[in-house]
Amino acid sequence: MAEMAAHAEVLALLAEFSAFGATKAGGVSRLACDRTDGLARDRLVQWFKSNGFEVLIDPIGNVFGRFDFANAANRTFLCGSHLDSQPHGGRFDGTLGVVTAMVVAKTLKAAALRGDLKPLYGSLMVVAWTGEEGARFQPSLFGSGVFVQHLPLETALKTTDKDGVTVARALADIGYAGRDIVARPDHYFELHIEQGNRLATAGKSIGLVEACWGATKLLVTVHGRADHTGPTPMEARKDALVAASHLVVAVNDLAKTASAPLHSSVGRMEIEPNSPNTVAERVRLWVELRSDDQEALSVALAGFKAKLGELPTLTGCGAEITSETQRPVAVFDKVGLDLVEMAVTKAGFGAMRLSTIAGHDAISLQTICPTTLIFVPSKDGISHSPEEFTSDQEVIAGYEASLAAISALLTVPPFKADPSVPHES
Amino acid sequence: MAEMAAHAEVLALLAEFSAFGATKAGGVSRLACDRTDGLARDRLVQWFKSNGFEVLIDPIGNVFGRFDFANAANRTFLCGSHLDSQPHGGRFDGTLGVVTAMVVAKTLKAAALRGDLKPLYGSLMVVAWTGEEGARFQPSLFGSGVFVQHLPLETALKTTDKDGVTVARALADIGYAGRDIVARPDHYFELHIEQGNRLATAGKSIGLVEACWGATKLLVTVHGRADHTGPTPMEARKDALVAASHLVVAVNDLAKTASAPLHSSVGRMEIEPNSPNTVAERVRLWVELRSDDQEALSVALAGFKAKLGELPTLTGCGAEITSETQRPVAVFDKVGLDLVEMAVTKAGFGAMRLSTIAGHDAISLQTICPTTLIFVPSKDGISHSPEEFTSDQEVIAGYEASLAAISALLTVPPFKADPSVPHES
Repeated sequence: MAEMAAHAEVLALLAEFSAFGATKAGGVSRLACDRTDGLARDRLVQWFKSNGFEVLIDPIGNVFGRFDFANAANRTFLCGSHLDSQPHGGRFDGTLGVVTAMVVAKTLKAAALRGDLKPLYGSLMVVAWTGEEGARFQPSLFGSGVFVQHLPLETALKTTDKDGVTVARALADIGYAGRDIVARPDHYFELHIEQGNRLATAGKSIGLVEACWGATKLLVTVHGRADHTGPTPMEARKDALVAASHLVVAVNDLAKTASAPLHSSVGRMEIEPNSPNTVAERVRLWVELRSDDQEALSVALAGFKAKLGELPTLTGCGAEITSETQRPVAVFDKVGLDLVEMAVTKAGFGAMRLSTIAGHDAISLQTICPTTLIFVPSKDGISHSPEEFTSDQEVIAGYEASLAAISALLTVPPFKADPSVPHES
Repeated sequence: MAEMAAHAEVLALLAEFSAFGATKAGGVSRLACDRTDGLARDRLVQWFKSNGFEVLIDPIGNVFGRFDFANAANRTFLCGSHLDSQPHGGRFDGTLGVVTAMVVAKTLKAAALRGDLKPLYGSLMVVAWTGEEGARFQPSLFGSGVFVQHLPLETALKTTDKDGVTVARALADIGYAGRDIVARPDHYFELHIEQGNRLATAGKSIGLVEACWGATKLLVTVHGRADHTGPTPMEARKDALVAASHLVVAVNDLAKTASAPLHSSVGRMEIEPNSPNTVAERVRLWVELRSDDQEALSVALAGFKAKLGELPTLTGCGAEITSETQRPVAVFDKVGLDLVEMAVTKAGFGAMRLSTIAGHDAISLQTICPTTLIFVPSKDGISHSPEEFTSDQEVIAGYEASLAAISALLTVPPFKADPSVPHES
């Protein structure tokens, strides 16, 4: 009965959160720290309080709900994901990981109070990270990046959206400029939708994430000259949009010639003055290169830089990289993954190991503590779209797998995360 | 002395108008019916009143200053240009034609009052047309298009800018929603900067415009699918920005293969959702094709449509033309041009005949009355840019050539504009 109630609560909470920023197309548009994100956070905080979790808000607005097991252990277990979405995003990305973590924590809290769970951790926390998507505020993994001190808090608070609103202002507006200090956890667990189609292809319901692809993100500025699109002789033009278009095609082509799997894209472009009868003077492009092969990333970057070098001859326009960030290939805690694989398989789920391409908050967390990331399928691999879909059955499987995984992780003695040091098996 | 005073007034007025919407880069940003356009209009109206011109504002906000010669003639002579600019435009485009027309009219008014000019026209009017640039409100040639009934007034007033503000609202806000009815003129004269470099190359100071290139303007929508830029397999993507970039390059390439001079461009593009890590779902492109050869325009349009047809195979994205407007090749009044050529040459200016590529309000007017358009040089052919430049000496030459041309046009008997009917010479 408790199991059925938990399943119903997961589905009900998912439906409830989907309403905050719901779009006509059936997705959500819930940008970091906007009004709808504020409403979603309010609901989370209200749920924490009514279920006996202490609420903590840190200075970048990450929302935590903590339950102390009242035992002698001093370790903290953290699980969760994010509530913000892309401008025309789906209902599952991020939210599913928060909702399943909430109900898993509630279930384990009840089990511990009944004496059915003897955790080796002193407390269990659920988190909703601020601004994972990087849609309103860049970079992505914003709140978790500050939490792990990869992104300085001062820099983060001053970051502005396209309208010049700072993160500090946006957090204050929705009432989430917190002051709580939250200590480094001893393990982090996250469930997320796959955003790919490998689980469906293999007929598996749970993905066990071994590694995360590296990513190189570039901001590129192309310099042309504003001219009238009518009389200016074609050979005299410096058309920044033509030059930028060559770059977009070149970036897309990098994936075709790479020696290892490579995903390359330009998702955003700002054109000035963007008037129908003026030659573009300046274009800024947001370029992403992703691969699980560090060498392939380096080769792609070199290829892109070579293309930049050809632009003046090809188009009369100069171009420069104004920002370059590298996220190296990351490998998740192997010991935890072995344990979770056993627990999930024992619970009856078909699981497979895979790597993730998208960034997730787990990528931030794995830099400071052993971290486990698992996936449930998303239909046709579509995400960042209203068409993003995971069935109720798959959602419940994700909940049950999380419950099995976290139970197992909570109850094993500490193990050394350093794989170079042999541990007892 | 009067001549020197007139020259000084032309330069002073030009400097004065340059201050409305002045940019740090030394250009102007004076969008149609914005606050700075309102200030420029206010200055024009004030000048008309203090120099004895009757002010008329028509329902689309075109501003006229009229002086009646108090003779028996009933014909009206109109001269002028526009005061609006591109978002990062220059100081001369449009404004120079208004300022020179003002001072020419003032000079001729004084000459008529002294009895030194015996015009065969009953009145002389100066005009500043609303929204020539097409930057804030599309199409370009907005006010003159309504004046010649090419663009219906009702449609024009409902037209919105990118923020949803209607022309009716914008005109009311600056106090230029007029009610005056202005009759069809019997001749229109406009001076404009060349926006090309043929005068400089030929060492001439005045261009006599024989014809205007035709233009085909298209609005194109490319349909992709929003997806996460990370995990979505490259072969599964429908990236509307990649597809649009192929179109931008293809449009640019059309000029290279055309059988006649062809200028082709994409000046504006709207990308949705335009987020760094979401594959573009939809892109809209503003395409322009211009030529003095109607056949070359047709071939280019067919070539572009063929490229659209290739997009699904090339990129997985569909595309459609949602709006297509054609402005045919136009030929200006030949009789008036012969007369102006004689007058300008007699006044000591080196003149050459040429065609214009950019649209000007004169293109609208030539559909309802004999029309004369002359050019002065603009440095390196640069316009729609803060770098747009015409020297004081060239400005004064433009004023003097306009004075000679309008004096000659005002004092000759009416001639038949139809070249098929022989006229006495």
